Amino acid sequence: MSDHAILLVSCPDRRGITAAISNFVSGHQGNIIHADQHIDDQSNIFFMRIEWSLDGFSIPKDLIAEEFTELADRFGMEWNLYFRDDRINAAIFVSRHLHCLYDLLYRVRGGELTCRVPVILSNHSDAAGIAEDFGIEYIVTPVTPENKAEQEVRQRQILAERGIELVVLARYHQILSPEFVDAYPNRIINIHHSFLPAFPGQNPYARAYKKGVKIIGATSHFVTAELDEGPIIEQDTVRVSHSDSLQRLKEKGSDLERVVLSRAVRWYLERKILCYNHKTVVFD
Amino acid sequence: MSDHAILLVSCPDRRGITAAISNFVSGHQGNIIHADQHIDDQSNIFFMRIEWSLDGFSIPKDLIAEEFTELADRFGMEWNLYFRDDRINAAIFVSRHLHCLYDLLYRVRGGELTCRVPVILSNHSDAAGIAEDFGIEYIVTPVTPENKAEQEVRQRQILAERGIELVVLARYHQILSPEFVDAYPNRIINIHHSFLPAFPGQNPYARAYKKGVKIIGATSHFVTAELDEGPIIEQDTVRVSHSDSLQRLKEKGSDLERVVLSRAVRWYLERKILCYNHKTVVFD
Amino acid sequence: MSDHAILLVSCPDRRGITAAISNFVSGHQGNIIHADQHIDDQSNIFFMRIEWSLDGFSIPKDLIAEEFTELADRFGMEWNLYFRDDRINAAIFVSRHLHCLYDLLYRVRGGELTCRVPVILSNHSDAAGIAEDFGIEYIVTPVTPENKAEQEVRQRQILAERGIELVVLARYHQILSPEFVDAYPNRIINIHHSFLPAFPGQNPYARAYKKGVKIIGATSHFVTAELDEGPIIEQDTVRVSHSDSLQRLKEKGSDLERVVLSRAVRWYLERKILCYNHKTVVFD
Amino acid sequence: MSDHAILLVSCPDRRGITAAISNFVSGHQGNIIHADQHIDDQSNIFFMRIEWSLDGFSIPKDLIAEEFTELADRFGMEWNLYFRDDRINAAIFVSRHLHCLYDLLYRVRGGELTCRVPVILSNHSDAAGIAEDFGIEYIVTPVTPENKAEQEVRQRQILAERGIELVVLARYHQILSPEFVDAYPNRIINIHHSFLPAFPGQNPYARAYKKGVKIIGATSHFVTAELDEGPIIEQDTVRVSHSDSLQRLKEKGSDLERVVLSRAVRWYLERKILCYNHKTVVFD
Repeated sequence: MSDHAILLVSCPDRRGITAAISNFVSGHQGNIIHADQHIDDQSNIFFMRIEWSLDGFSIPKDLIAEEFTELADRFGMEWNLYFRDDRINAAIFVSRHLHCLYDLLYRVRGGELTCRVPVILSNHSDAAGIAEDFGIEYIVTPVTPENKAEQEVRQRQILAERGIELVVLARYHQILSPEFVDAYPNRIINIHHSFLPAFPGQNPYARAYKKGVKIIGATSHFVTAELDEGPIIEQDTVRVSHSDSLQRLKEKGSDLERVVLSRAVRWYLERKILCYNHKTVVFD
Repeated sequence: MSDHAILLVSCPDRRGITAAISNFVSGHQGNIIHADQHIDDQSNIFFMRIEWSLDGFSIPKDLIAEEFTELADRFGMEWNLYFRDDRINAAIFVSRHLHCLYDLLYRVRGGELTCRVPVILSNHSDAAGIAEDFGIEYIVTPVTPENKAEQEVRQRQILAERGIELVVLARYHQILSPEFVDAYPNRIINIHHSFLPAFPGQNPYARAYKKGVKIIGATSHFVTAELDEGPIIEQDTVRVSHSDSLQRLKEKGSDLERVVLSRAVRWYLERKILCYNHKTVVFD
Repeated sequence: MSDHAILLVSCPDRRGITAAISNFVSGHQGNIIHADQHIDDQSNIFFMRIEWSLDGFSIPKDLIAEEFTELADRFGMEWNLYFRDDRINAAIFVSRHLHCLYDLLYRVRGGELTCRVPVILSNHSDAAGIAEDFGIEYIVTPVTPENKAEQEVRQRQILAERGIELVVLARYHQILSPEFVDAYPNRIINIHHSFLPAFPGQNPYARAYKKGVKIIGATSHFVTAELDEGPIIEQDTVRVSHSDSLQRLKEKGSDLERVVLSRAVRWYLERKILCYNHKTVVFD
Repeated sequence: MSDHAILLVSCPDRRGITAAISNFVSGHQGNIIHADQHIDDQSNIFFMRIEWSLDGFSIPKDLIAEEFTELADRFGMEWNLYFRDDRINAAIFVSRHLHCLYDLLYRVRGGELTCRVPVILSNHSDAAGIAEDFGIEYIVTPVTPENKAEQEVRQRQILAERGIELVVLARYHQILSPEFVDAYPNRIINIHHSFLPAFPGQNPYARAYKKGVKIIGATSHFVTAELDEGPIIEQDTVRVSHSDSLQRLKEKGSDLERVVLSRAVRWYLERKILCYNHKTVVFD
């Protein structure tokens, strides 16, 4: 099977964008496999994800971006070109709740998540055994208020050395500095254990329990400088009742967290997410 | 079919409560139809709902409460005794969004909600036609900041004259005064068009749209003096995506609102709700 | 606001279809509002729904179909052209369970369902009052095994005289003959009160209750000659438990039926449904 | 913390059962922690689960059953007595799809499922590595049509030697003989990858895909001699669309399977399930 090219585009809406992009692909003998578009009525922005087979495509893979530039400039596009068969490197950050880490690694191993995970970072040693089971490098970077800046330098060096594109915070209980976040724009995915914007910050399950909600949730989102305020990628919920203890809430929630985080990572890897105005378009 | 008695009880937990209550019923030849209990571990409170057939019960209906008092006092119970076949009077307050009103009236007429609705109150005339279709008195009490206190006096008089036990706010866009609320403790049910505690107050759909959430919800709750902070009775959610317009969010949400409000009213009428610590036990 | 054209297309997949269709629209100054496509990998069929504004479109509305024919023939397309602002006539068939009828009429009146309902047909007189409330003609066509053929002739005449495009079976408890069904291909929508293919045919709630399922569902589908076997348009489910009586199952289910049927009708009216291989593509 | 006793009871309904059982507990100074009851109206059977603390209970643990017999006989009860802190032995059977196995072992290790897993049996060697990671004995018993009877003798010997109470079929693709099933009445839990009774038997995802359903599901149930016909313990569903490939259906479904199977095992271990008339009462 030949590789696929994937183009993510956003630009001010006007006539002819879809036709122009479709022509670029078809005019060079590309076969469109998927094409999704969305227009935000309120801000008048056009979004497109188009995926085509490179089998018979008349532009060599490494020249496609160059060839597309003229068209992109004409419409004032922000755009990115990806290839389906490229495997990116993702790093997972984790603390002491390991269910999301476990779940991600299991999905990577089974081929459901198509990335490499060269390294796991943690402020604790708890996940060392799991990392070993999966044959992944495990580095403990114990962050304290005093050494945070220093440790982040080290963390970013670790990421850089391993060519990490995506950082997944799989219940990592430290807040990254704005500098760290800015270095990975829309490339850090966090799982928060509530249906945001309800219960941002600490101890969402305990607060949900106290509040007596009848539904709990989980939210995966891109990390921005403001805590738990980044663009939401995916959410899901599950019913609870007065008979569920706080412990039971956490257990029910952990099943949600795993699914909600893995969907976000999957969509990222499949290049299905576009961000704008602090929210996301997910072409699934 | 004979009538049923329903007893709702809460008290500090200690040994022997369930046995004592069961014995009260069985010792007088009552046949228990349902019995649910719950113990809140953190505050050590015992809750029970017990329903029994009066067929063959040896205490006359109008003496049951008196007979139960000795037992209740021994355990320091807060309690209420109800009878399944009693039909209470409920008033519905509505503004200009009429889907919940419509839905409630349809369920009352079909026998799913077993109450009488002698009167509908509104600050607008929009629902007059519906009230007429259903043969229900319709009173317009146009509330302004200036006349609010005065209008509430009138509203409460209307409720009192018609023997209203339960007030249902079916998208009523006025805030009741603390005095009004205090006069109907845990007897005013509101539908809020978000999954509280997210998006309390005004325009929750517009705020959910702006935030880019992937799930919207609705919440029915008892009204307390603090806006949208009363004990939650029921919640439900539905998925949305970037392709749903604000108008579509409102339409999807209105389906939720109807179901979530009707469940709360139903449980109230079936005497399945107990309140404590600003939350609810719902024995369904 | 100008009208929109909507084109639904299916054909064998090959290179250039998306580009050709996009060019047809853009080349005549049409602004694409939505474009969705899908390729069925297994049968290699291409599907597209494209919607564009007629504001500035250089082909007059009544010539668009003619102009499109050449392109359509070149790719061997099956296609239909619609206009967003056209209001079609729908007839509702109902028996004695009236919740879906009620719900549909309420949504039509509120503008959520953009069709006209000139007539309601029933084998019973139960819904006469509702029809009167909504100002809709109500015709009783009491079908018996003996007079079925004769009554269907009459029913089809009623539909023909009122220019009915879509027939909605809102809990209509009669089976239409193959001749009737063939006269309205993919234009009769039924609501079945189970999650098909579980519990087709009679009494699905009673059978679900007996089976002890933990989830019940509802299914809207196009009617074909085989009972409850037509292409599924939409399904939804709700949890039940051992404590739910058969009556409660029916009540919970009726909330599903209303939502699931109304979504199908909505998507039909918005021209979002394509049928093939006994299943549907729904571009929502 | 002291141990808890748990009593599961069913018997013909009549007056005084709840009171008699409550008195048995309270009369011996037991403190009731949970009490749930259910009456099946149609078959007039009474069900109860009652859990009480043994702290201060005046009957020694090993005499409780004996003491309860007189009462049980009086009401014609079927009953079982359990103790919360007892850890039973469960065996897991698996074939080549390992996600459910993995999930169960992870939950056992984390303490969410309170049982021991002394052995994993499989007709393939695929899960050997996982068994090793978790330190669990792994025995391959390759079943063929010819050697099935013989292998089942061996399997049952393995179970007997390790004192296995519960058998969990975590995607085990062999059908157990009626003799095997009869030896473990309501003690074999299977996960089936559809929402039964839809798609029993082979390849449910492929059949769901072909049928074009809009929702897929998973079902955990007790195994009886009839394939996929045993009492349903738990079900859950997830939405799918025309754009989901068969592979994607399997992936979405596998997330359901894990959760649905683990809930059933959890409820079994917590002694929350009662069976009757080919269905279950689950007191959760």
